[in-house]
Amino acid sequence: MASNEKTLKARSPRGFADRSAADIRATEKMVATIRRVYERYGFEPVETPLVEYTEALGKFLPDQDRPNEGVFSFRDEGDDENSDWLSLRYDLTAPLARYVAANYDKLPKPYRSYRVGWVFRNEKPGPGRFRQFLQFDADTVGAASPAADAEMCMMMADVIEELGIPRGQYVIKVNSRKVLDGVMEAIGLAGDGNAGRRLTALRAIDKLDRIGIDGVRELLGRGRKDESGDFTKGAELTTAQVDALTGTFSPFTHDWQKPFAIKTYEKYLLPLIPSGVFPKPVEDGLDDLEAIRGLLRAPQQDSHPIYGPDRIRIDPSVVRGLEYYTGAVFEAELLAEIANEKGQPVVFGSVGGGGRYDGLVGRFMKDNVPATGFSIGVSRLQAALSALGKLEDKGATGPVVVTVMDESRIGDYQKMVADLRKAGISAELYLGKGKFGAQMKYADRRGAPLVVIQGENEHNQIPPVVQIKDMRVGKALSAVAEDRQAWTDSRSLSQQEWPVDRLVEAVSSLLGRAS
Amino acid sequence: MASNEKTLKARSPRGFADRSAADIRATEKMVATIRRVYERYGFEPVETPLVEYTEALGKFLPDQDRPNEGVFSFRDEGDDENSDWLSLRYDLTAPLARYVAANYDKLPKPYRSYRVGWVFRNEKPGPGRFRQFLQFDADTVGAASPAADAEMCMMMADVIEELGIPRGQYVIKVNSRKVLDGVMEAIGLAGDGNAGRRLTALRAIDKLDRIGIDGVRELLGRGRKDESGDFTKGAELTTAQVDALTGTFSPFTHDWQKPFAIKTYEKYLLPLIPSGVFPKPVEDGLDDLEAIRGLLRAPQQDSHPIYGPDRIRIDPSVVRGLEYYTGAVFEAELLAEIANEKGQPVVFGSVGGGGRYDGLVGRFMKDNVPATGFSIGVSRLQAALSALGKLEDKGATGPVVVTVMDESRIGDYQKMVADLRKAGISAELYLGKGKFGAQMKYADRRGAPLVVIQGENEHNQIPPVVQIKDMRVGKALSAVAEDRQAWTDSRSLSQQEWPVDRLVEAVSSLLGRAS
Repeated sequence: MASNEKTLKARSPRGFADRSAADIRATEKMVATIRRVYERYGFEPVETPLVEYTEALGKFLPDQDRPNEGVFSFRDEGDDENSDWLSLRYDLTAPLARYVAANYDKLPKPYRSYRVGWVFRNEKPGPGRFRQFLQFDADTVGAASPAADAEMCMMMADVIEELGIPRGQYVIKVNSRKVLDGVMEAIGLAGDGNAGRRLTALRAIDKLDRIGIDGVRELLGRGRKDESGDFTKGAELTTAQVDALTGTFSPFTHDWQKPFAIKTYEKYLLPLIPSGVFPKPVEDGLDDLEAIRGLLRAPQQDSHPIYGPDRIRIDPSVVRGLEYYTGAVFEAELLAEIANEKGQPVVFGSVGGGGRYDGLVGRFMKDNVPATGFSIGVSRLQAALSALGKLEDKGATGPVVVTVMDESRIGDYQKMVADLRKAGISAELYLGKGKFGAQMKYADRRGAPLVVIQGENEHNQIPPVVQIKDMRVGKALSAVAEDRQAWTDSRSLSQQEWPVDRLVEAVSSLLGRAS
Repeated sequence: MASNEKTLKARSPRGFADRSAADIRATEKMVATIRRVYERYGFEPVETPLVEYTEALGKFLPDQDRPNEGVFSFRDEGDDENSDWLSLRYDLTAPLARYVAANYDKLPKPYRSYRVGWVFRNEKPGPGRFRQFLQFDADTVGAASPAADAEMCMMMADVIEELGIPRGQYVIKVNSRKVLDGVMEAIGLAGDGNAGRRLTALRAIDKLDRIGIDGVRELLGRGRKDESGDFTKGAELTTAQVDALTGTFSPFTHDWQKPFAIKTYEKYLLPLIPSGVFPKPVEDGLDDLEAIRGLLRAPQQDSHPIYGPDRIRIDPSVVRGLEYYTGAVFEAELLAEIANEKGQPVVFGSVGGGGRYDGLVGRFMKDNVPATGFSIGVSRLQAALSALGKLEDKGATGPVVVTVMDESRIGDYQKMVADLRKAGISAELYLGKGKFGAQMKYADRRGAPLVVIQGENEHNQIPPVVQIKDMRVGKALSAVAEDRQAWTDSRSLSQQEWPVDRLVEAVSSLLGRAS
């Protein structure tokens, strides 16, 4: 075909990455650990397709100010005005809501499930920011109880520790969106007409970690100019409104061990609310947090507290940027310092989050269905675990390579490989056109522990023999060889002669000896 | 949200399916087995993204007569005439070719790799025919040797047997596309101008299994009317041309144990070729098949033949519908009879296939790069294995369910669950609002082996106790209980009282006893 067509550039669209064997194996190891914890909590797997009706997904993306953007969409067959719009899913929550509604009667309720899968965002890609990435979610649908939210937090803490991050190097932060919603209502931002400003305010507060309290206040007010000089329009709230909103989180000391800081709310927040009384959502939100705090304390009545504030704590600054959350919201953060691209130590930050979304299933049903969930950004967490050395795969070796010394006897070499594989040993016949040097280089590149060699000499002996070269011994010895003689010795030490009909026995023993 | 929006229908686009826990677990079990065999053959994993540039994928789909159809495509950001077209991949071969070209210098050559992933076809869905489905591919790139093709066939045979299908119930069929290509050349169908007719002819022959030799002859000629009355236009070849093409396969007895049937070709095919001599591609193709046959025989010099004609055989009727094959082609077929939708026994047929595609990587490079591969249709193979009872998961049980008898003591129940999980036992707190009956029904639905119950009576004992109800014993006994007394006895036999501080010990012992 190369002759008929112009030569194409071998490139991928920006933000779509290939994955190497090491990357895939690290992900699998991590996903297996997460799955083990989820199953221990009684969650079972479910999967939805990567393509959904666009309207079923809804428009709940963060940082998506322009309608219909942020997702990859295309028309179903026909491609005319009557055909439906389809989209690649942008998260695993909206499809789960569709799934639960479609299968409501046959699912156990509450329904605990988990799913791992690719999601897509049609956003500007950047370093570490992809347009296709892997999420691993767990959700409990049909449970309104704060016990379901508390369970999510405990499960995420267990996941992170089972992945090798010790207590003290991470924290699960919990808050309730109801408090913020109530305050918004109290300062005159209720109703459909204010939906846009509420969302802008929400996403401004969600940026607290990155832009600080002054940056948030600018975004709640007229707007903010960032480092690059770009101006982002704000929510245009009055100073009193901005004070009330920032009052929901700024004065707190985050000491969750004490009864939740309702007094602090009363002291700081109440004077900022025009009516002078907390609206019901604020009271409800504080009650939820108090219940969650109590449940997290329950399992630690013994001398070994399971869930302390060094694992899970209430933090009023956590809001999450997604519009669909209705109650508790969570954020998992790694506190370990990891070198950034410039080599500077930085706190790694968020590796996942979630919350309660009591309205999402209800988009498809007559009644609302309570639901809460947690989503792990697999690629991001994997990057952190790799940086911390938690995903190293020391045991991985390549296959045994059988070299081809005489092309006319390829059937004999094929038989050696087949015999090794039959014994469960990973083995390869060299299939290229290279001579001996190229074959040894290939074996080295493949990480082969052993290479099997049978030239004319070996074949003509009675009985016929093979040379088995131990690449690991050879490497270790030649690294310390001081002169030419030592190097020659190392070669002979690393190579053994065996009768060909004892090949499987010899290879098994050599692999066993070194493993 | 249910109040603000119209209620959406909870539906998925046609041809896109959800997957249940049992389905996911069966796939995982199957995929793990396939992966184990591939790794034993020295293949390593690699993954490419689900989205590629449309031009990188090319147009190689079978049954795709209209350009730009068959794939899901959309424009990259900007969505104007200058933005690139992107597509969801329709197989795992075209993306691998792009990957190898992009990473050519750093890959070991030959490069053996495998990948499992979702592919998409924008075709009319039907029963058992999806628009998103899972493929599991293995490919060797950079090896022109027929040994690479022979290895593919051996590996596929090993995969199928390791999945539990015994010898004699499946067959791997091998052929070479070169023979057919050479015959096409000889009967005047060479050159770019005849590409369309060559492809139509190819796909007609590929339908042999379904429509028989007469149907194929119609499609090679003027065309064919199918059962529904729809007319498919044919390749419009002359009778002599049709005779020559069908001559490539129809007279064979498929006895691969004899030297490959070049005599048969000479007898039947040569008189049909205008020049009276075999073109070079025919000779090359026959040489390749002879080499593959020799290699398959090589590993069976001992008394236990590994690859007999009951496992792998040369079959000149196999052509494969994809345009990009250039040499050997393979097809894996299950011979076991499985009941179809009407309950009639039918041979299951193809579960995978592949072949040599020496031109595909070359689309991106100056030179052609030889390559050969095999693709397994995971969903189709899984359907067959399920029907044959090879994927049953008898050991699967649900979590231990801790009931909530007193909402105010949910913290105590939470602690029981946390203690069980800490001991590695899958356990759940009931999170719904149901009373005892609903909770037992939930436990039953979840497949819980044990249910833990602590009401007021149990809580007030000194020391406090729990009731542990064994759902498995209860079920087994009540199934055989003959009267009310026996049923009552079965209840007491299935329930035990334990001090609450020995809960983990009791549950562990009960789970161990029955497992």
